[in-house]
Amino acid sequence: MAMEDDRSKKDDDFNDTVAEETSVERIFEESGAVPPPWQNQLTIRALVVSFVLSIMFTFVVMKLNLTTGIIPSLNISAGLLGFFFVKTWTKLLHKAGYLKQPFTRQENTVIQTCVVASSGIAFSGGFGSYLFGMSDVVAKQISPEPSPPMTIKNPQLGWMIGFLFVVSFIGLFSVVPLRKIMIVDFKLTYPSGTATAHLINSFHTPQGAKLAKKQVRTLGKFFSFSFLWGFFQWFFTGGDDCGFTAFPTFGLKAYASKFFFDFSSTYVGVGMICSYLINISVLLGAILSWGVMWPLIGAQKGKWYSSEIPASSLHGLQGYRVFIAIAMILGDGIYSFIKVLFNTLLFYLCRCRDDLLVFDQHSFVLPVDDRSPSFPSVSFDDKRRTELFLKDGIPAWFAVGGYVIFSAISIIAVPFIFPQLRWYYILVMYLIAPILAFCNAFGCGLTDWSLASNYGKIAIFAIGAWAGASNGGIIAGLAACGVIMNIVSTASDLMQDFKTGYLTLASPRSMFISQVIGTAMGCLISPSVFWLFYTAFDGFGQSGSAYPAPFALVYRNMSILGVEGFSTLPKHCLMLCYIFFGGSFAVNGLRDAVGPKWSRFIPLPMAMAIPFYLGGYFAVDMCVGSLILFIWRKVNKPNADAFSPAVASGLICGDGIWTLPNSILALAGVKPPICMKFLSSSDNVRVDDFLNSS
Amino acid sequence: MAMEDDRSKKDDDFNDTVAEETSVERIFEESGAVPPPWQNQLTIRALVVSFVLSIMFTFVVMKLNLTTGIIPSLNISAGLLGFFFVKTWTKLLHKAGYLKQPFTRQENTVIQTCVVASSGIAFSGGFGSYLFGMSDVVAKQISPEPSPPMTIKNPQLGWMIGFLFVVSFIGLFSVVPLRKIMIVDFKLTYPSGTATAHLINSFHTPQGAKLAKKQVRTLGKFFSFSFLWGFFQWFFTGGDDCGFTAFPTFGLKAYASKFFFDFSSTYVGVGMICSYLINISVLLGAILSWGVMWPLIGAQKGKWYSSEIPASSLHGLQGYRVFIAIAMILGDGIYSFIKVLFNTLLFYLCRCRDDLLVFDQHSFVLPVDDRSPSFPSVSFDDKRRTELFLKDGIPAWFAVGGYVIFSAISIIAVPFIFPQLRWYYILVMYLIAPILAFCNAFGCGLTDWSLASNYGKIAIFAIGAWAGASNGGIIAGLAACGVIMNIVSTASDLMQDFKTGYLTLASPRSMFISQVIGTAMGCLISPSVFWLFYTAFDGFGQSGSAYPAPFALVYRNMSILGVEGFSTLPKHCLMLCYIFFGGSFAVNGLRDAVGPKWSRFIPLPMAMAIPFYLGGYFAVDMCVGSLILFIWRKVNKPNADAFSPAVASGLICGDGIWTLPNSILALAGVKPPICMKFLSSSDNVRVDDFLNSS
Repeated sequence: MAMEDDRSKKDDDFNDTVAEETSVERIFEESGAVPPPWQNQLTIRALVVSFVLSIMFTFVVMKLNLTTGIIPSLNISAGLLGFFFVKTWTKLLHKAGYLKQPFTRQENTVIQTCVVASSGIAFSGGFGSYLFGMSDVVAKQISPEPSPPMTIKNPQLGWMIGFLFVVSFIGLFSVVPLRKIMIVDFKLTYPSGTATAHLINSFHTPQGAKLAKKQVRTLGKFFSFSFLWGFFQWFFTGGDDCGFTAFPTFGLKAYASKFFFDFSSTYVGVGMICSYLINISVLLGAILSWGVMWPLIGAQKGKWYSSEIPASSLHGLQGYRVFIAIAMILGDGIYSFIKVLFNTLLFYLCRCRDDLLVFDQHSFVLPVDDRSPSFPSVSFDDKRRTELFLKDGIPAWFAVGGYVIFSAISIIAVPFIFPQLRWYYILVMYLIAPILAFCNAFGCGLTDWSLASNYGKIAIFAIGAWAGASNGGIIAGLAACGVIMNIVSTASDLMQDFKTGYLTLASPRSMFISQVIGTAMGCLISPSVFWLFYTAFDGFGQSGSAYPAPFALVYRNMSILGVEGFSTLPKHCLMLCYIFFGGSFAVNGLRDAVGPKWSRFIPLPMAMAIPFYLGGYFAVDMCVGSLILFIWRKVNKPNADAFSPAVASGLICGDGIWTLPNSILALAGVKPPICMKFLSSSDNVRVDDFLNSS
Repeated sequence: MAMEDDRSKKDDDFNDTVAEETSVERIFEESGAVPPPWQNQLTIRALVVSFVLSIMFTFVVMKLNLTTGIIPSLNISAGLLGFFFVKTWTKLLHKAGYLKQPFTRQENTVIQTCVVASSGIAFSGGFGSYLFGMSDVVAKQISPEPSPPMTIKNPQLGWMIGFLFVVSFIGLFSVVPLRKIMIVDFKLTYPSGTATAHLINSFHTPQGAKLAKKQVRTLGKFFSFSFLWGFFQWFFTGGDDCGFTAFPTFGLKAYASKFFFDFSSTYVGVGMICSYLINISVLLGAILSWGVMWPLIGAQKGKWYSSEIPASSLHGLQGYRVFIAIAMILGDGIYSFIKVLFNTLLFYLCRCRDDLLVFDQHSFVLPVDDRSPSFPSVSFDDKRRTELFLKDGIPAWFAVGGYVIFSAISIIAVPFIFPQLRWYYILVMYLIAPILAFCNAFGCGLTDWSLASNYGKIAIFAIGAWAGASNGGIIAGLAACGVIMNIVSTASDLMQDFKTGYLTLASPRSMFISQVIGTAMGCLISPSVFWLFYTAFDGFGQSGSAYPAPFALVYRNMSILGVEGFSTLPKHCLMLCYIFFGGSFAVNGLRDAVGPKWSRFIPLPMAMAIPFYLGGYFAVDMCVGSLILFIWRKVNKPNADAFSPAVASGLICGDGIWTLPNSILALAGVKPPICMKFLSSSDNVRVDDFLNSS
């Protein structure tokens, strides 16, 4: 499959540049900075800092969960704050003369990984979605009559911690075997992970490297710009649909179809890191869906689906969006999965590597020690990183064994917590879950979007329908959502971390242990923090209160809809899903068939599917990033190649770290003072009249 | 006086750069492009194009007059459109083989001058202000009872044309003698005029000059950017206080005090052309007035002035703003005027140049053929430009004679049109007018703002008070406003043109004739266009109609206020005016006393006064321009010096030319679709409720 060529080409360009201009690893090596053995990457101080940061981030994520439900990626903040904490600490120790072990970038990565693993559970634990959706508080908002006890499960600290412990570690084991495929073989980008790694590397770059220093300064400049830009934007977001993120750049009509430039420096940066093909694919997907399909389907309102249901209902247009996107993503994911599986089996079973290469020359299974001269030369950085990434291996039997054992525990334990969720439901889920985890980690590697909650939604529908309303399908669906989300979300989050680890020479083994520790921390911290919120605030979970937990209501509603089965989907929706699933398969097949020369003009279905659901605004951002890079390369290619990764990382990191003070402001109840609102001229006249009269 | 040092230093820097890097005039000379004799600069085709453009621009200005009353400078548009018209024409003729005379930049300047002179009358003719303010339609809006006939003068095509012919040409003669002082001796900047000249030069630059070509490309790039930015902004201005020009960059409170960055590329460009001292002075003035004085005076509301009058009344806070600003401007202007007069007299009477130089070494009376080695060497461009600018001289006796003759005609003729305006009022005005014209041309040369309407307002008060209510003071005041405005406005507009002519080697003689022709055109075209509007639209001049002519009402109100004399000014206002007038004098004296070494740290009162009335937003714009230039120079001084004039001109011109399609859109009744509104968070909640409920 040639799908990866662009990506790997891009990566190679990237690495070639790095190799010629500044081989980051060579600089580190020349300065004598050898990565410490994996045991020494896991220091006590790292774990203490991780613990403190985990609590902080869990508060932040929980607050966001319970207020808007939109959670940004916190990888970058974690990396940066980890650095500052330990750096200050080691500086103080160094001055006092007590410093035994210098602070390495591997240690930094370990902290970042641990914090992400821990605070990730605040999201995947579903405290703002599926878990709290089981409660009486939410059920009462849907119908005031008392619900049957079979459809209710109120939060209790005990069962929540137990449930999380049982389901969260499986995610880890599902990730481990994918590690090498995703990062070494596919060379997926993982924009956030890459940006974090650049940040961490830049902090630890030894003195004396001139270009590296320049890059660090560039990164710093764009970091500051992006941070200040985020700060500036904040002032104008005092209300819904306010501020630059609601800027109808192409007019109000395009805005209604989610086509606008939302001034997010994060996604401009992501666009600069991703290959042109991905950016174009995303844009094409946005145009196809929001420009053509949804308007056409919307025109059938009243015929294909009831015109009386609200816009957000999955029985209406929203249903087409979500399910067609999922079908396409599944199509691409499963195609890739099958292909990789086939190739890998061929490779391991008959050792017929030559056959394999003949059979699929553009395969993304690109053995590191490949001797074929047709492959682009592997740069020093690549070689060194891959070597260290594969050195402290985690054997496959360990991963598979762990997965099986934890699945078994889960299959036995979870039905005790949720009797509505039968053991065989869980078994089936754990059979399918690795494919979904693969798809999500893959998509996230391409575009930086994790679609964990969407996979969770499929589980609600699938299991809810299977269980049926009479057998407590509502709770079964929500619990199933939890089981799937924990695996799928962990898969993408931790794969981002592995990418960071790869680029900072952290040992996968220390990373894995750090993830285990982080997950354990998260399983304790998250429910406790939730319990604090739950017991401390009056009217918790009621809409209109300070903590309305909007998605809890949404998830419960979906589950109620789900128990009635897929037949309740709007008309032709399932048929369209089949078509797009097949189309996704076909396009991938075509890409493989025509070879890399032509496949670089054929869009990637996975990248196309993401805006189906979300809209085109981030596609516009990414294309702006692409365009900047394109022009920059036209003007000054060596300069662009040397500095664009630094610029992109700066943009992503600055915006990322801004989410922290932003969240703190929100926690402190500080509201932005101004709303930058966009009204049609006619509405504006009415509003002016209203404001003048009152 | 050292006030000019910074400016001339700036200009010298500018010209030195030009001289070293690309002497524009050398390039022109080497290519054999000798300026044609002045008679040949005035071609028939130039006058035809001028006539067509004059009609177009008069429509635009009239429309703006009658809708918002805010008129941007149209010099640039005129230069550019003149170029395109004649260039297309000559290209066609050239292809057909009929081209007799090539299109020169001098011809281009002549067109631009003629159009500005003509369309300027649409503004200074007062069709949206004093002239229409005399009408019954406006009087009825102030009090529904019929006004005494003595206070009314309804528009009639006949007397309007007559009045304009009588008063408009005097302005021309008042400008001519100032020409050399302002442009050759003072080397004033005239940002718009300079930008226009750069534009015209760049269009006509002979092939082969590499840097010049690069500069043209830079100009073109920023021109396009600025134009597109203006276009983009337009979409978001669908209502009052909408769009980027109402962007509360520093918060809503600062916005209320008119401190914000209004994203005007024009003023960012102006800031890049003006010296740092001017930009800082403007900012200081804004801070002193809107940051300190107005809040302090505002706190005396109810004590110093009635708390019941509207905010825009000159009896209230607005009175302090307008009159203190005028006092300061007058102080600076009269100081400079006296000094120049004194120096000039000394120079001409006793020929004691050495005394003069000893007496005031930093004088801005800088003889061109000066032999003192302490003066910076005059660049080739400067020499050549000055030489040509002085070659086709217009003798002083001609200017003075013309002024006297036209004054006499005016003194005799105007009282026939307005019997309320006695001949001795007019005589006194014509005695004072040259000082005011000097002040305005001077201030405009410094900062690009023409304050003609403010001088007109003084006339309303002075003459209105003198005449008194019983003698028809209202009409006398308004007519006096017309007399003064026509001189003062012409002085600044045409001085801008002379600067353009100076930089493009146009002969002052051809320019003068072009201005005469343009003025004559304007005296016919403007009243006719107004008459068209006046007769064509129902409800013309009524507030709420399509053409409310808001300033007509304002001017009539001021005149009503004026007949009651200065005693009706708010408390302490006159005292404050004296203080600031004296302060302005004192600061100028100090600047002269300390010499150029220290005076570059002492702000310019003239520049400080302008934001007193208008607010700090354009000061912010200009300082942003200054800051950009400052950083650019830090990073790459030669590059900044070579390209910053091109960038600034591009920014000014692009935004300037955008006003044309913008006006056409307004004429066509196309309203921008979106209002980008800035609401406080609390207002936003109310507005959201309102929009949801209705």
